[in-house]
Amino acid sequence: MTPYSTPSPSSGTRHLADLRGPQISQMLLPTSILLQPLGAIEQHGPHLPLSTDSVVARAVAEEAVRRCGEELDVWLLPALDYTKSNEHAWSPGTMWLSATTLLAVLDDIGRCVATTPAQRLVFLNGHGGNSALLNVACREIRLAHGLMTFLTHPGQPADQGGSSPASELGMGVHGGTEETSIMLHLAPDLVDMSQAVRRVPDRLARNERVRFGGTVSFGWLSNDFFDEGIIGDPTPATAELGAALFDGAVRNLCAGLAEVATFNFGR
Amino acid sequence: MTPYSTPSPSSGTRHLADLRGPQISQMLLPTSILLQPLGAIEQHGPHLPLSTDSVVARAVAEEAVRRCGEELDVWLLPALDYTKSNEHAWSPGTMWLSATTLLAVLDDIGRCVATTPAQRLVFLNGHGGNSALLNVACREIRLAHGLMTFLTHPGQPADQGGSSPASELGMGVHGGTEETSIMLHLAPDLVDMSQAVRRVPDRLARNERVRFGGTVSFGWLSNDFFDEGIIGDPTPATAELGAALFDGAVRNLCAGLAEVATFNFGR
Amino acid sequence: MTPYSTPSPSSGTRHLADLRGPQISQMLLPTSILLQPLGAIEQHGPHLPLSTDSVVARAVAEEAVRRCGEELDVWLLPALDYTKSNEHAWSPGTMWLSATTLLAVLDDIGRCVATTPAQRLVFLNGHGGNSALLNVACREIRLAHGLMTFLTHPGQPADQGGSSPASELGMGVHGGTEETSIMLHLAPDLVDMSQAVRRVPDRLARNERVRFGGTVSFGWLSNDFFDEGIIGDPTPATAELGAALFDGAVRNLCAGLAEVATFNFGR
Amino acid sequence: MTPYSTPSPSSGTRHLADLRGPQISQMLLPTSILLQPLGAIEQHGPHLPLSTDSVVARAVAEEAVRRCGEELDVWLLPALDYTKSNEHAWSPGTMWLSATTLLAVLDDIGRCVATTPAQRLVFLNGHGGNSALLNVACREIRLAHGLMTFLTHPGQPADQGGSSPASELGMGVHGGTEETSIMLHLAPDLVDMSQAVRRVPDRLARNERVRFGGTVSFGWLSNDFFDEGIIGDPTPATAELGAALFDGAVRNLCAGLAEVATFNFGR
Amino acid sequence: MTPYSTPSPSSGTRHLADLRGPQISQMLLPTSILLQPLGAIEQHGPHLPLSTDSVVARAVAEEAVRRCGEELDVWLLPALDYTKSNEHAWSPGTMWLSATTLLAVLDDIGRCVATTPAQRLVFLNGHGGNSALLNVACREIRLAHGLMTFLTHPGQPADQGGSSPASELGMGVHGGTEETSIMLHLAPDLVDMSQAVRRVPDRLARNERVRFGGTVSFGWLSNDFFDEGIIGDPTPATAELGAALFDGAVRNLCAGLAEVATFNFGR
Amino acid sequence: MTPYSTPSPSSGTRHLADLRGPQISQMLLPTSILLQPLGAIEQHGPHLPLSTDSVVARAVAEEAVRRCGEELDVWLLPALDYTKSNEHAWSPGTMWLSATTLLAVLDDIGRCVATTPAQRLVFLNGHGGNSALLNVACREIRLAHGLMTFLTHPGQPADQGGSSPASELGMGVHGGTEETSIMLHLAPDLVDMSQAVRRVPDRLARNERVRFGGTVSFGWLSNDFFDEGIIGDPTPATAELGAALFDGAVRNLCAGLAEVATFNFGR
Repeated sequence: MTPYSTPSPSSGTRHLADLRGPQISQMLLPTSILLQPLGAIEQHGPHLPLSTDSVVARAVAEEAVRRCGEELDVWLLPALDYTKSNEHAWSPGTMWLSATTLLAVLDDIGRCVATTPAQRLVFLNGHGGNSALLNVACREIRLAHGLMTFLTHPGQPADQGGSSPASELGMGVHGGTEETSIMLHLAPDLVDMSQAVRRVPDRLARNERVRFGGTVSFGWLSNDFFDEGIIGDPTPATAELGAALFDGAVRNLCAGLAEVATFNFGR
Repeated sequence: MTPYSTPSPSSGTRHLADLRGPQISQMLLPTSILLQPLGAIEQHGPHLPLSTDSVVARAVAEEAVRRCGEELDVWLLPALDYTKSNEHAWSPGTMWLSATTLLAVLDDIGRCVATTPAQRLVFLNGHGGNSALLNVACREIRLAHGLMTFLTHPGQPADQGGSSPASELGMGVHGGTEETSIMLHLAPDLVDMSQAVRRVPDRLARNERVRFGGTVSFGWLSNDFFDEGIIGDPTPATAELGAALFDGAVRNLCAGLAEVATFNFGR
Repeated sequence: MTPYSTPSPSSGTRHLADLRGPQISQMLLPTSILLQPLGAIEQHGPHLPLSTDSVVARAVAEEAVRRCGEELDVWLLPALDYTKSNEHAWSPGTMWLSATTLLAVLDDIGRCVATTPAQRLVFLNGHGGNSALLNVACREIRLAHGLMTFLTHPGQPADQGGSSPASELGMGVHGGTEETSIMLHLAPDLVDMSQAVRRVPDRLARNERVRFGGTVSFGWLSNDFFDEGIIGDPTPATAELGAALFDGAVRNLCAGLAEVATFNFGR
Repeated sequence: MTPYSTPSPSSGTRHLADLRGPQISQMLLPTSILLQPLGAIEQHGPHLPLSTDSVVARAVAEEAVRRCGEELDVWLLPALDYTKSNEHAWSPGTMWLSATTLLAVLDDIGRCVATTPAQRLVFLNGHGGNSALLNVACREIRLAHGLMTFLTHPGQPADQGGSSPASELGMGVHGGTEETSIMLHLAPDLVDMSQAVRRVPDRLARNERVRFGGTVSFGWLSNDFFDEGIIGDPTPATAELGAALFDGAVRNLCAGLAEVATFNFGR
Repeated sequence: MTPYSTPSPSSGTRHLADLRGPQISQMLLPTSILLQPLGAIEQHGPHLPLSTDSVVARAVAEEAVRRCGEELDVWLLPALDYTKSNEHAWSPGTMWLSATTLLAVLDDIGRCVATTPAQRLVFLNGHGGNSALLNVACREIRLAHGLMTFLTHPGQPADQGGSSPASELGMGVHGGTEETSIMLHLAPDLVDMSQAVRRVPDRLARNERVRFGGTVSFGWLSNDFFDEGIIGDPTPATAELGAALFDGAVRNLCAGLAEVATFNFGR
Repeated sequence: MTPYSTPSPSSGTRHLADLRGPQISQMLLPTSILLQPLGAIEQHGPHLPLSTDSVVARAVAEEAVRRCGEELDVWLLPALDYTKSNEHAWSPGTMWLSATTLLAVLDDIGRCVATTPAQRLVFLNGHGGNSALLNVACREIRLAHGLMTFLTHPGQPADQGGSSPASELGMGVHGGTEETSIMLHLAPDLVDMSQAVRRVPDRLARNERVRFGGTVSFGWLSNDFFDEGIIGDPTPATAELGAALFDGAVRNLCAGLAEVATFNFGR
């Protein structure tokens, strides 16, 4: 009944929205970091819930703020659940914003953050399908609103240079071993491992350039490869692996935020 | 760590996003109701947190679904925290989408809901500043996507025909007795009653037509009246009143959803 | 042949557009009121012309300006005939602007009015389908262009808290007793009472919440209820009732404008 | 009080909006012509009213429909008063739509006309500043909505190949001899000849190419040339000349409509 | 292999884009002219290449700059190949920008040019279908960015007052004698005269008003008239005529630029 | 004078725009590849011309098509010179499209390509600032128009995983050793090595995460680091290195196109 049950700011909550109006100007500093998680509500195959990316982004963000928020002066913004998931448009229940809508939402966020004393805005993006647009937004917001903007992920997506188990041939892009493991750790009740199937586009691995993370990228929809809409192998996933990955993600985020906190352009 | 700690769908969670992809088509029916809460992140005076509308909308929605969701086949969508709060644009930290951005977001939502078997979409709007735009969206989505669309509030806003205590001259529009009471009930740690001040534009009460809820409505910003950005009197607020109001809001919502469940246009 | 046959400004016309360029700065004051009528060109059932809302809005506006324009320093803007009538999109001949188009038109109007000395802009809206969008526009224009903005109606729409005869169960929303009566008064040649039929969605009256003017509003198209596209009962309409309603509308408008003339936010 | 005092359709009004809904499908034919007048509300120098273009476009359209509407099956649409007058944006009281707004309005009109049986849409444009955009719209509407679209003027603008008295060196573009004369004929009370001044950019006449109607056109604002915002010589204007020009405009329009009525692409 | 093989600016290239960043501020003057060619990639019938308008616009622009660029301080911008060719949307391979896209592109160009010292921007438009939109853009850019803006053509289009051989009845609008001749001169390898056919809508010539260049213009698509998509008679085209026309076009452009160079509004 | 002097298609030109209308349907196959080069007109420091990215993208594309176009059935589209260069907006002469404009242009291109028989569209992007938006566009076009879409670069940008000489600490992002070398090879007359200066943000190299190509990316403008607007070290650049890099780029492109030619999603 009390979704914001964290203690009041005076005693340590770091949800920006838990502050009262006049506190924004009193408590934020130019060096404060605003952390904006982005999830997604989109099909994740027959074994994972639509909320997967939102669950992960929120959990990593909250745990990181718990660990290093005070020290690095990080403030958490409310997560965005509806983002750009149109590669899953074919699957009923996927809730997605168009590219121009999301770009407008991000610009609105930048405009608003720029009214506070804080000058550092970090997007923590739980959904790989948002990465390119967020990259665009980072520059747009920097130019239009003067903020320092950053983009990072709970785990580097496999099609953006991130690692992925060999059993997936490096292609655990959606609903694979690692994502499933983290969900088994965070929200096991929402995972149905009896539905988990391996779906790896093996022949793509033969390509040297046109492949995930190759020098030739390509536009794809999640049903271009398999009917189940996943790309990866969830079958070996375990909660133990998930716990380790989750802990690594939180550590990475804190390490990244530490560099953000002192980042400047050298002038 | 497990923000979605509610039990799995098989045992009763009614968060749409907790379903797995194929379940959408299996578990939703044409008569299913999708409930979309909308909050706001905006200044609520010196005594209430920015998150007030989000806290209330979420809590009312979740409690209502708990009480009558199973019976009426209601499914909860993730709340929208960033909405149209530009009457508070002057106050740093207010996070607002422009009218055209929010209209686009709502259209995107309608487009996506229309891919599911469900045909009833209910907006539960916690922020009065969204009402008019949501009213527009209800018609747009009905025409463009064919859904049956509905709009209701945790409590009817005082400038939209809702009641408000006599001590506020019926003008408890923002940060007044009732809103503050509900927050004292739901999230007392986030309320600072020592900052609560009465700010009622008494002279407006002398108008017969140009007034909140009058036959002549008017465009206003929350600092048009007072520097503190509130309109109402939070000082008599109590958690007891809040508990009663909250319970009434949940009952009203369930009663409204019961009518939605059987609504048709008579053809 | 002389559609603007009213006398020249020097002798009393109060059409803003009849002024010559330099007169705008000479004759308007910060307290001057600009009155923008909005009509509609949309089906009104088999008995009323498409122009119904435009006829009524124009006539009420012109008569009100005649009665109280000089005293209250009101200036009439040219009426908008094409507005947001998409609930009648199914009916050939309905001429409607999309929500975003009309929002852009209204913003353009606000931008232009803000270049004059006048600071009060009143929308007199003859078409209920515009009300929500105009409400949005009132705030947008206040924020973007700094004007004081107001919205009123020739008669409060039945689905917005306005009264409606008992024979219509309070649902004379479109083409009913009152609207038909006013047209019998203003433009009897354009009304064909032999086509008038009662079309009241009686079963909706049994609802306590989901109903016109209820706490749960809903998106509807004018053919959702009946093929004829009306909601109400035009059969008992008379020119006498229309004359009285018209006179009441003009009086109400003048009374409203009187409050607009002295309105301020109390600071 | 009865702005639409023309007789009912059965006895001859040809305002489309005076029809009742079902009549649209009954009375319009594929060969019917819909005539859309466009005026403007913009400064016309110190001697002419802001409404000049609207007065002229409406009067020419109405008189032409009176003369040849029955024979050629022409139906009059409500005039657009707010159009693209941004060359006069500098002058308070000029009411203008942006290019994209007007383009959207025109597309909306095309979309709606295409729902009727009529297939011919004629824009009668009283404001030269709209011509280029209307030209664009003619093609857009033809492609998007399949209508046959046409554009004509009460008098060919001097900067678009139209004639203009020698005393104006062919540059009677705005507020000059001819426009002023027509207003002296149509609405003499709105003209103040005591304010009429000659403002002709003589040196422009020395250019062979960069000139009004030359092979090099140029973007201009109405205060680029003179503070008074006119280009032309109103001083010799007379009501007699105006009567002749008006009659010629009506004849030209009827002659044009006669060709429109039988126009096809030869296939 | 070196598409920009022209000598360095110091020795005479006048491609703006060949300058190095700091040179922009050093070498451009307020009186410098920036020349923006616009071509098109669109079907030109069975005998001419899609690139026709681009070939001609580029060639005329480059030759003119060669002849008079130094003297008149003209700088060439990179040509736009994709423009508004939607009258040819029916023909696969036609590459066209929508009206709003091209308007946005042109506004972007105006915004950027306004950051340089130069204040004169000339559009050299090789595709008649762009003319109206460019006319709109000339005013928009003048108002929004303060530049002096101009529009001219390699040859005045036949539907915009330009001449056309009698054998085409003045209707050599697309793919006719003159355009084909210029291509035979500039790029004979891309022309296939064996496919050339005469396609003149003779009956249109009987119209006095509704015709190309008449007082009633009309929206048309290039397949409204003939399946081949051309309007004109390419059969008598010769390279000799093309050479003469090309030379005339270059002379005209230089003469126009000379007037642009000294143009002012007389204040 | 004849910019399209390549022989006619029958004898081997592979510029799509050199085809004549009916040839599009005759000569293209579903397996044909359309290659769209994108350059930029933007400051590249004091030593390189604004046209750098356009020169390189065009040259690589043309040479690759020359080498492998026939074999792989590749068709060259006209290069886009104006793209998204807003990180250089501070530098006069930079010509840039806004993100939404370029997104609209790319959607228009996708829409048009989809009217041809060809189903493979490859963006060859010479400007790193476009990469993220092109990535977005690849998915948008795949979903909206059904094409197979690909993105590659003449050389992988250093901030996108590409290599860069050690002397630049891997940060040769703009105007550095490699880009300068290629320009010395392709267009030496446009390079002024006397202006070349080393500008490497050494302290950024100390970061582990927030760095070019790190797991935390960031929004930057080209003058965030140094006044000269470059990031890299052009001083050791040589034409010999450029020749080798250029040859490598062409080989890479051909190798990539070979994989594109046989690419499918495995179904």
